[in-house]
Amino acid sequence: MPPKNSLVKNLLPSLDMPKRRRFLTGSASVAATLSVTSLTLPVNAEENPLWMKTPGKPMSGYGTPSTFEASVKRPFASGYPTVSPGTGSSRTPHQALEGTITPSGLHFERHHNGVPDIDPLQHELLIHGLVERPLLFKLDALSRYPLVNRVHFIECSGNSGPNSAPEPPQITAGAIHGLASTSEWTGVPLALLLQEAGIKPGATWILAEGADAASMSRSIPLNKALDDAMIALYQNGERLRPEQGYPMRLLLPGWEGNTNVKWLRRLKLTQAPTFTKDETSKYTDLQKDGLARQFTFGLGVKSVITFPSYGHKLERQGLYEITGIAWTGAGRITRVEISTNNGLSWKDATLQGPVHSKSFTRFRLPWHWHGTTHVLQSRATDDSGAVQPTRTVFTAPYAKGMNFHNNYIQAWAIDANGSLSNVYT
Amino acid sequence: MPPKNSLVKNLLPSLDMPKRRRFLTGSASVAATLSVTSLTLPVNAEENPLWMKTPGKPMSGYGTPSTFEASVKRPFASGYPTVSPGTGSSRTPHQALEGTITPSGLHFERHHNGVPDIDPLQHELLIHGLVERPLLFKLDALSRYPLVNRVHFIECSGNSGPNSAPEPPQITAGAIHGLASTSEWTGVPLALLLQEAGIKPGATWILAEGADAASMSRSIPLNKALDDAMIALYQNGERLRPEQGYPMRLLLPGWEGNTNVKWLRRLKLTQAPTFTKDETSKYTDLQKDGLARQFTFGLGVKSVITFPSYGHKLERQGLYEITGIAWTGAGRITRVEISTNNGLSWKDATLQGPVHSKSFTRFRLPWHWHGTTHVLQSRATDDSGAVQPTRTVFTAPYAKGMNFHNNYIQAWAIDANGSLSNVYT
Repeated sequence: MPPKNSLVKNLLPSLDMPKRRRFLTGSASVAATLSVTSLTLPVNAEENPLWMKTPGKPMSGYGTPSTFEASVKRPFASGYPTVSPGTGSSRTPHQALEGTITPSGLHFERHHNGVPDIDPLQHELLIHGLVERPLLFKLDALSRYPLVNRVHFIECSGNSGPNSAPEPPQITAGAIHGLASTSEWTGVPLALLLQEAGIKPGATWILAEGADAASMSRSIPLNKALDDAMIALYQNGERLRPEQGYPMRLLLPGWEGNTNVKWLRRLKLTQAPTFTKDETSKYTDLQKDGLARQFTFGLGVKSVITFPSYGHKLERQGLYEITGIAWTGAGRITRVEISTNNGLSWKDATLQGPVHSKSFTRFRLPWHWHGTTHVLQSRATDDSGAVQPTRTVFTAPYAKGMNFHNNYIQAWAIDANGSLSNVYT
Repeated sequence: MPPKNSLVKNLLPSLDMPKRRRFLTGSASVAATLSVTSLTLPVNAEENPLWMKTPGKPMSGYGTPSTFEASVKRPFASGYPTVSPGTGSSRTPHQALEGTITPSGLHFERHHNGVPDIDPLQHELLIHGLVERPLLFKLDALSRYPLVNRVHFIECSGNSGPNSAPEPPQITAGAIHGLASTSEWTGVPLALLLQEAGIKPGATWILAEGADAASMSRSIPLNKALDDAMIALYQNGERLRPEQGYPMRLLLPGWEGNTNVKWLRRLKLTQAPTFTKDETSKYTDLQKDGLARQFTFGLGVKSVITFPSYGHKLERQGLYEITGIAWTGAGRITRVEISTNNGLSWKDATLQGPVHSKSFTRFRLPWHWHGTTHVLQSRATDDSGAVQPTRTVFTAPYAKGMNFHNNYIQAWAIDANGSLSNVYT
């Protein structure tokens, strides 16, 4: 079998070949100081690193990240913990992550009265209201139903809210956009359970209530429940994490996060929305005319460059890969364009396949930095034809400071020293 | 928009409709005792569970599973820890998991001298031997290269070895087949780095060495390195876990686990295999004729039913979903058949898409258990046309007890009480 050089051939043209020598000199500078003849291997034990000289750690039942990665944590809003430590959010640190799956330990949190410590043997899910046969499920009964597994993002409608401030906050990509995370979810199609219960005429909405101390509740149109909704039981292979609704949550792919009710305890079929405290006191979008949009469920098309972004520093000139994540509540991402000159021109990034519906899509574009100032932006398009809006277009209809459903184009400025900052353009 | 009932329509025929009433009566028995008129909601605080009456736990920087899931751990070989606690393995508990992604904390381990605690700022990767330009990389330099992310399994060649014992071991699916796990890996295509180094004429193999205290080393054909190999830097979104090679490992999709050298410190291009201690003292397949097969890299087509399996108990008659995982080193899984009558007849399971190359594929088949005895088996086929062998066919060429590359069909017996056991057929 001859060597398969196709991968090399495919990648190298995008690397801007004439400049690759400079890249090598810059980033692999140690190599550049070595000549082939002077290269000596660390064959003496003295030259081997410490960890090759002593036995390593034993096996463990459940692994954790390296202690050298201790800084990769979910950041909280400033001032946390407050007098109400169960109210608030923590965010996925996207600027430190890669790929598309969010590690479960770093999936964002948004709680209204903390994380309940639910005994799965005690927990029950009730389906009632306008149904022929009310059903009450224990976890083991629900787990016997035919399951499906799908990769989907969940995004809080308050994600990117910090960018609704008058001045651009100088915080990381995760601290701004980290109320969005992607997992492989496994659960029971909700349509199957509703079929089992029997939907009575007149039922058009469902009240979904969580078993947390806030009884967090939302009204959901029945159509969505019969479309792609599931009762999620597993997250990235294992049972749901407590912060994501253990032992079960509602999953409404592509819809604002808090409609994906965690610790789900009941679904009540109704003739109309219930107008719960959680959908009247918040999760409405105030417009300039004083009216508020309500039940704005679907999430817009969106992207964010995660590298380079605030907190990173380009230490040397040379080749870098601009990368980030894009997603949309409408379906699949079809295009991500990148501008390095504040929107004057755009270039298509590569979408890393396979591209899942209503899931993070990783995009990549090699780029050579020459030590000059730039403004980096990414602009996503989805298969409904929607294009990520500019800040001006997004904010136009809303009252000042409206901080839900913010999906406008994020801009990062690079100065001549290679430092990054958040800018409004 | 009219309700989309397509999901219901698609699923219900496979549920064996006439028997669904019995299923409901059996599994959701609480519901069966409720009449619509007598149903009362737990509207009084007294009826709410404890965790709805007190605020829950605060946010956390890095989440962990529920304490109620404490038993979902990686099992060790019996007798562990021994005098050499860094030598051995721990396994993914597949019987407790769902979907296809393995949580990083439950990815299998196989170490030869423990898990080194590597400082990523100190770690270096050397590419040398028959190259034009030896290269030495720090992690930050390597991280600047164009990356790719792909979902792949890794499987130890010793996986399923317990089933090479004379009598079938009565242990869980994970304890038998848990030296296989799937992650989303992100890293640098190795072909790109080799192109950078320049491959000299005559180079046909690569020695890959780890920075652990065993200097675990394997010889790899250059063709594989130029095909789909990568230097993996991230696992399921975050930096590699220490047990999987932090800060970098070789990833050779579809090839036996220990060639995916962890804690990778050097790649030396050579004219021939190096015949390291790790590929002569073990990882060879002894045949009946006294000769051993060596460099048997590619992993065979394989599947295992994870539910129901040893340790589960079917408490009631009724509908269950038979489910499990299938994978192959050759490419994609194209078919999984299930027999419930010890191989007399077979029925196609549903493959849960998208089906990735060299990755776990989840299969599912609804099944009604009537309280009688059965032997359950799954048989996978891949896109190379290979079919998972029977125990007789697999063991034919090998010496007794040869316990590498075991991919024969797993059989689970169900007795009339619904208890499961491992059987050889």
